[in-house]
Amino acid sequence: MNSTSITIPGLVRIKPGALERLGIYCQRQGFGRVAIVMSADLPAALTSALKSSLESADIHILFRQEAAEPDFDEARDIFAALPSQADAIIGFGGGKALDVAKFAAALARKPYLSVPTSLSNDSFASPAVSLLLRGAKRSLNATMPFGVIIDTQVCLGAPRQLWHSGVGDLSAKLTAVRDWKLAFHATGEKVNDFAALLSDATVFQFLARPAHDLQGVRLLGTALMQSGIAMEICGSSRPASGSEHLISHALDRMAPQQHLHGIQVGVATYIVAHLQRNEHLCALAGLFEHTGFWESAASSGLNRQQWQEAIALAPRIKPNFHTILSQRDWWPEIAHLLEHDPWLRACFA
Amino acid sequence: MNSTSITIPGLVRIKPGALERLGIYCQRQGFGRVAIVMSADLPAALTSALKSSLESADIHILFRQEAAEPDFDEARDIFAALPSQADAIIGFGGGKALDVAKFAAALARKPYLSVPTSLSNDSFASPAVSLLLRGAKRSLNATMPFGVIIDTQVCLGAPRQLWHSGVGDLSAKLTAVRDWKLAFHATGEKVNDFAALLSDATVFQFLARPAHDLQGVRLLGTALMQSGIAMEICGSSRPASGSEHLISHALDRMAPQQHLHGIQVGVATYIVAHLQRNEHLCALAGLFEHTGFWESAASSGLNRQQWQEAIALAPRIKPNFHTILSQRDWWPEIAHLLEHDPWLRACFA
Amino acid sequence: MNSTSITIPGLVRIKPGALERLGIYCQRQGFGRVAIVMSADLPAALTSALKSSLESADIHILFRQEAAEPDFDEARDIFAALPSQADAIIGFGGGKALDVAKFAAALARKPYLSVPTSLSNDSFASPAVSLLLRGAKRSLNATMPFGVIIDTQVCLGAPRQLWHSGVGDLSAKLTAVRDWKLAFHATGEKVNDFAALLSDATVFQFLARPAHDLQGVRLLGTALMQSGIAMEICGSSRPASGSEHLISHALDRMAPQQHLHGIQVGVATYIVAHLQRNEHLCALAGLFEHTGFWESAASSGLNRQQWQEAIALAPRIKPNFHTILSQRDWWPEIAHLLEHDPWLRACFA
Amino acid sequence: MNSTSITIPGLVRIKPGALERLGIYCQRQGFGRVAIVMSADLPAALTSALKSSLESADIHILFRQEAAEPDFDEARDIFAALPSQADAIIGFGGGKALDVAKFAAALARKPYLSVPTSLSNDSFASPAVSLLLRGAKRSLNATMPFGVIIDTQVCLGAPRQLWHSGVGDLSAKLTAVRDWKLAFHATGEKVNDFAALLSDATVFQFLARPAHDLQGVRLLGTALMQSGIAMEICGSSRPASGSEHLISHALDRMAPQQHLHGIQVGVATYIVAHLQRNEHLCALAGLFEHTGFWESAASSGLNRQQWQEAIALAPRIKPNFHTILSQRDWWPEIAHLLEHDPWLRACFA
Repeated sequence: MNSTSITIPGLVRIKPGALERLGIYCQRQGFGRVAIVMSADLPAALTSALKSSLESADIHILFRQEAAEPDFDEARDIFAALPSQADAIIGFGGGKALDVAKFAAALARKPYLSVPTSLSNDSFASPAVSLLLRGAKRSLNATMPFGVIIDTQVCLGAPRQLWHSGVGDLSAKLTAVRDWKLAFHATGEKVNDFAALLSDATVFQFLARPAHDLQGVRLLGTALMQSGIAMEICGSSRPASGSEHLISHALDRMAPQQHLHGIQVGVATYIVAHLQRNEHLCALAGLFEHTGFWESAASSGLNRQQWQEAIALAPRIKPNFHTILSQRDWWPEIAHLLEHDPWLRACFA
Repeated sequence: MNSTSITIPGLVRIKPGALERLGIYCQRQGFGRVAIVMSADLPAALTSALKSSLESADIHILFRQEAAEPDFDEARDIFAALPSQADAIIGFGGGKALDVAKFAAALARKPYLSVPTSLSNDSFASPAVSLLLRGAKRSLNATMPFGVIIDTQVCLGAPRQLWHSGVGDLSAKLTAVRDWKLAFHATGEKVNDFAALLSDATVFQFLARPAHDLQGVRLLGTALMQSGIAMEICGSSRPASGSEHLISHALDRMAPQQHLHGIQVGVATYIVAHLQRNEHLCALAGLFEHTGFWESAASSGLNRQQWQEAIALAPRIKPNFHTILSQRDWWPEIAHLLEHDPWLRACFA
Repeated sequence: MNSTSITIPGLVRIKPGALERLGIYCQRQGFGRVAIVMSADLPAALTSALKSSLESADIHILFRQEAAEPDFDEARDIFAALPSQADAIIGFGGGKALDVAKFAAALARKPYLSVPTSLSNDSFASPAVSLLLRGAKRSLNATMPFGVIIDTQVCLGAPRQLWHSGVGDLSAKLTAVRDWKLAFHATGEKVNDFAALLSDATVFQFLARPAHDLQGVRLLGTALMQSGIAMEICGSSRPASGSEHLISHALDRMAPQQHLHGIQVGVATYIVAHLQRNEHLCALAGLFEHTGFWESAASSGLNRQQWQEAIALAPRIKPNFHTILSQRDWWPEIAHLLEHDPWLRACFA
Repeated sequence: MNSTSITIPGLVRIKPGALERLGIYCQRQGFGRVAIVMSADLPAALTSALKSSLESADIHILFRQEAAEPDFDEARDIFAALPSQADAIIGFGGGKALDVAKFAAALARKPYLSVPTSLSNDSFASPAVSLLLRGAKRSLNATMPFGVIIDTQVCLGAPRQLWHSGVGDLSAKLTAVRDWKLAFHATGEKVNDFAALLSDATVFQFLARPAHDLQGVRLLGTALMQSGIAMEICGSSRPASGSEHLISHALDRMAPQQHLHGIQVGVATYIVAHLQRNEHLCALAGLFEHTGFWESAASSGLNRQQWQEAIALAPRIKPNFHTILSQRDWWPEIAHLLEHDPWLRACFA
């Protein structure tokens, strides 16, 4: 009556030095031969650390390819080229390469090890990917990673903007849960209370200590990963993705890859939280200020005209998906915010 | 390869006024006829609130019984007497009555609604029960509650000692996770990293704001419930129960029901955290001080002699269950602590 | 959207000589110490075969007890007496002892190995048990056996009546599935088509070769076990238990344990199939004739008066459970059948 | 400890007239708008029956496309073109179109309704697909169909060769299960006994009544669908696919789509059963003779040279997959069989 089947990673390591031990983790699982799909622009120190970690544990690298773009056909070609002897696929680097690796691994039905070098969004521990198909970004199912290995030391060394992007993606849970409850009242869509409580809790967990240090990276990684459980439990992305993600999707349709996903989402979360009169608005504002999120957002150079169009388009992106944006045209309020809120004004200068 | 099947409550409400709405929740689920098993010593205001909540939604109370003791045979007799027309069983009150209700519901294969009036331990949202069989406390499986309804206003009004007991039971996750990792190194017992991270996180969540107010009750309830997910994910109580629980079980063998479960467990957690040189010892100490846990512990009048025997007995209670206590006789360190630690000295005066 | 979580035995062996190899199976699972609950009246050859199988593989028998009656309190006492060091519980013998063993194992949360010496009903591979509580038979949940080990040679040597009982219990799937579809049309109760197809199929599988030989025992054992999957898939006993089981339950209320479960059920299936104008009536009649079921049924000495009362009581046994018997008083048709059908006349002489 | 999570179709109908009622089934599920992917060469009577079934229930057909080839890029393009408002995707026709439809639906994360017009293989109720990628056939994961609707009248009217192909694919379970047990003895690969018993049983079920009539189509459809459960239970294709499938895959690499999958597989099953000295060889031979399988096989014009190469290639196709073919070069025995077995001689004339 109340049994739920979820898929979770079987191997999880979140700690400093995890990259060095990756070879040992592979060995213990019996993954003697691996294929690697990695970001194109990684520092040499990281790629050689990966190589020596695997080699020192006698793991053979049968295949290695860089993925510059999160492209559907590129994932297909990697799948077609993957050696059948590979015991597992390792995705290494940023979100785009990881999505290509995850999708190729799902096509090949091989275990996938997700080894992010930054925590810019929650995709490193989710079954979903976002790929370009004929120039348009599409959300697709892959499979939950078999392993999630986060070297907190490595992620701490990633550009600060990527960290802010992760913070922005995490903050979206607050508005997403609120949108879900609005949908219940407007359309009767069932809310899974358990998933909603879990999702909210991931943000609070990080809020308790939102520092950019080893412990903070561990908390952010754990929180982003837990938000995946909330989605698994209710079988939808509702607890993690509401109107703030619709706005980001709409922006991607107009200009894909212009900005970091989590930066876009974070700014949209802040705007939507105002419209929702979200009870956690102050906590959110404090989080963004404290972590320096606004600096990364401001330096992104957001475009007021694009956002206006995106907010108009957003409610039509997912059929039968009620959010605060479905209720009426909010542009007047938003325009007012963009002019008068000091943080937003700095972003849309 | 990495799919896990877990059982979670289908209906969850944690908010002020939830008791008043219990009838509506039953109605929505189609539970028109219910049986109630409740604590013997509840304030009249609570029992009449329960009654009027159900009656105002036209829910028929077919059966109502008080459960004074958490007794196996009492649960059996309640099961035997339950009317077959009952659509669901409601457990109302403290941990003992809830365990009897949960076990009777499991025998009857009826949906069980857990409605705690205090949060003294994590049993309100777990599949396990603790019952007396021939005078000895035994852990038994029941089934995960179908519904968990926590009226935060009601729980806030419960005696402060019960609140401290819940805080103590929650804190045990820190030592339990550490014991699990010790077992991995000593015996190779597999650690589910995901479950361990989740369990740790429940404590951090509450640590962020350990206040005795409506929001604090909500956070404690959510955290205790989430620890149940961690257990479901790994299929054992390892992430929530280590040597600190063994000590409490050992105490129960000598004198069952002498003290509140979570008070015993909390004190044992504090002691074990010292032995483990647990990295979260300071956070734990701060939590107990801030919440006033020590006052409840001190007023319990713990017995030094009993604890010495319990600590000696603890490692033999569960076969093949390695913890810090399996490593050697720690009594010298513990005796020293009991004499010199100001908090413990107050408890064992 | 369409994911289902089921519990199935992890270890299954259905073949001649399986009893001799039981010790090896335990050894491979790491069950070095076991407790045994067995029937009171087993031939010495069987009990010594069990003993030597375990001993030759160095499996220690920590506890051994006979269970004469399928009694709730007996299962409770066995649970209370089980040594905590036991790695697994073995149930050995007929349906009653196996139910006691299964329930005690479930209380103790230990792996349970079901080793039937006859196939008189489908309980050897199901999570349910039927126990006497204060003189009344009650259905209770236990847990799915971890292992099902059927020595086909041993079961072939069991009394022929027990074999017929198994055939009768299997045949019930045909009327149960039909009742389920009637319930859909009468009350809208959802039918799980997949489970219904699977359940039907188990009977056809055995019908292809309903011989009382090693291969036949294997097919009957497999079919009875598969009917358990059908129940697991839909989460209820609907595909395996309809009005024919209600009649049997009603008989048990009047005189528990008077007759073999599957003999009662088989006769009731035959009667109900007439009322349902079941399309498989002829196949059923052929099966009973071919296997000699009717001889066992006739020698049971069924009581016409008891059956009349049982059929009147049957529709009131399970609330909200529609079957053909819910539709009207069928006694006139049934009385006519009992007088004129040659097989039934022989049973109720 | 022994819980397994499987995915099964939520909606199953196997009966005459099911096509006419497809619109009603959609309506009940709330699928008001559908997309259709169908075979290119269907009789007009079938396509108009589909259309009128949907229209009479007010189901809007938003998209309709024919899929001539089971091509990866075609599935991708259909996915890209699917209207986001579609509530479900219907696959209609033969195995190739159904595989394209199933893969496009999986990419789009929409419910998929599988409506085969023939039963030529077991793909209509499995999560796997077989698609051409750069000219080579590849096995890929999609998702289990939400619905399986088999109009037995329609399938009975399909070309006899397709029926024989389904029979051939079903028969493969016998050799696949045997190969699995060989692998256990040779490499220690774990056999899931339960899945093996289930898979065997599907063939016996059909063997009981292998007629080409409505009831026979129902049994074949049910059996092929059940073999999917066996695979779900053990999480691999082992119970349904052994050396006989390796031979067929090897043939496909040399000349994809030359012959019907199930015809190739059936002939390979017959050959492998000889090598295995399979205990069910006679039953298999009887089945093929009785159903007329050999006539379809003989009229396919198999090529001795290609088969010799395929048998040599087969053991190298799946790494770490032991079968009878891994043990040594069997060509001498096979060559002898091809010359002297009357049925095979007719096929390789």
